[in-house]
Amino acid sequence: MEFNIREAQVTDMPEVLKLINDLAVFEKEPDAVEVTVKDLEQDGFGDNPAFKCFVAVTNKTVQGIAIIYNRYSTWKGKIIHLEDLIVNEAYRHQGIGTALLNEVVKYASSIKAKRINWEVIDWNEPAISFYESKGATVMRDWDVVQLNEQGIKNYLSNI
Amino acid sequence: MEFNIREAQVTDMPEVLKLINDLAVFEKEPDAVEVTVKDLEQDGFGDNPAFKCFVAVTNKTVQGIAIIYNRYSTWKGKIIHLEDLIVNEAYRHQGIGTALLNEVVKYASSIKAKRINWEVIDWNEPAISFYESKGATVMRDWDVVQLNEQGIKNYLSNI
Repeated sequence: MEFNIREAQVTDMPEVLKLINDLAVFEKEPDAVEVTVKDLEQDGFGDNPAFKCFVAVTNKTVQGIAIIYNRYSTWKGKIIHLEDLIVNEAYRHQGIGTALLNEVVKYASSIKAKRINWEVIDWNEPAISFYESKGATVMRDWDVVQLNEQGIKNYLSNI
Repeated sequence: MEFNIREAQVTDMPEVLKLINDLAVFEKEPDAVEVTVKDLEQDGFGDNPAFKCFVAVTNKTVQGIAIIYNRYSTWKGKIIHLEDLIVNEAYRHQGIGTALLNEVVKYASSIKAKRINWEVIDWNEPAISFYESKGATVMRDWDVVQLNEQGIKNYLSNI
């Protein structure tokens, strides 16, 4: 199968959101996605984009995405965060995930990022094996902490 | 004890780096900090700062810091990442950590951030208790993944 990796355009966002939704279903949070196509179009493009997106295209359709943005480590300096690496289930095991990750690592190197960070749910063993095969370290002693939108409201009403 | 919370200035960075180093020692990675005062001065200020820093000041010295920056959730939209929340050990249990976190949550709310994210090492029970007491969720099934600087080099030499 042939596919092409390129930077996403505004017009890709409907297909990108579809893959984001598919992942939420897989991660057992089908109702968690509040972002709209319009949000992605506004937030990812223009003068100060909140993220950069690479897409894998085959037969003119988007079958894989990698979404990244800048972060800052107070130990290392500028780093990249890989927010999503998603390949349509029907198109897996054909090198699309690796090709997308290649693009992310090349980009990180080009901007002299000191590290690439991401997060994984600990029962997603295929993803963990894939990441480890690429040289990444899954830090099982480091957990993600979140104060969500309702938590922010509650917090502010208590101070 | 009286203290004052304010946004950091460039001239605070030597004291800020000292607290960053103290935390690395506590987290058993005393040699992990590669960032210099000059890096913090260049990266945190100017036209496109990579982070924002709040400091807690008492007797004209910085005894606590909170460092944040923007991230993007493809489920929720714009979110804030809390990279570091550090209080000098000798100044703990006097409300400085809470006062710094208050400032972060107020800031997140002011820019309509949908969530505040951070990371915690799973044996740091005092930190976990503190975060949970503030309404945050420690997601023990979500792990941090990293491809470090050497990992990026190795990766690129293999494609």
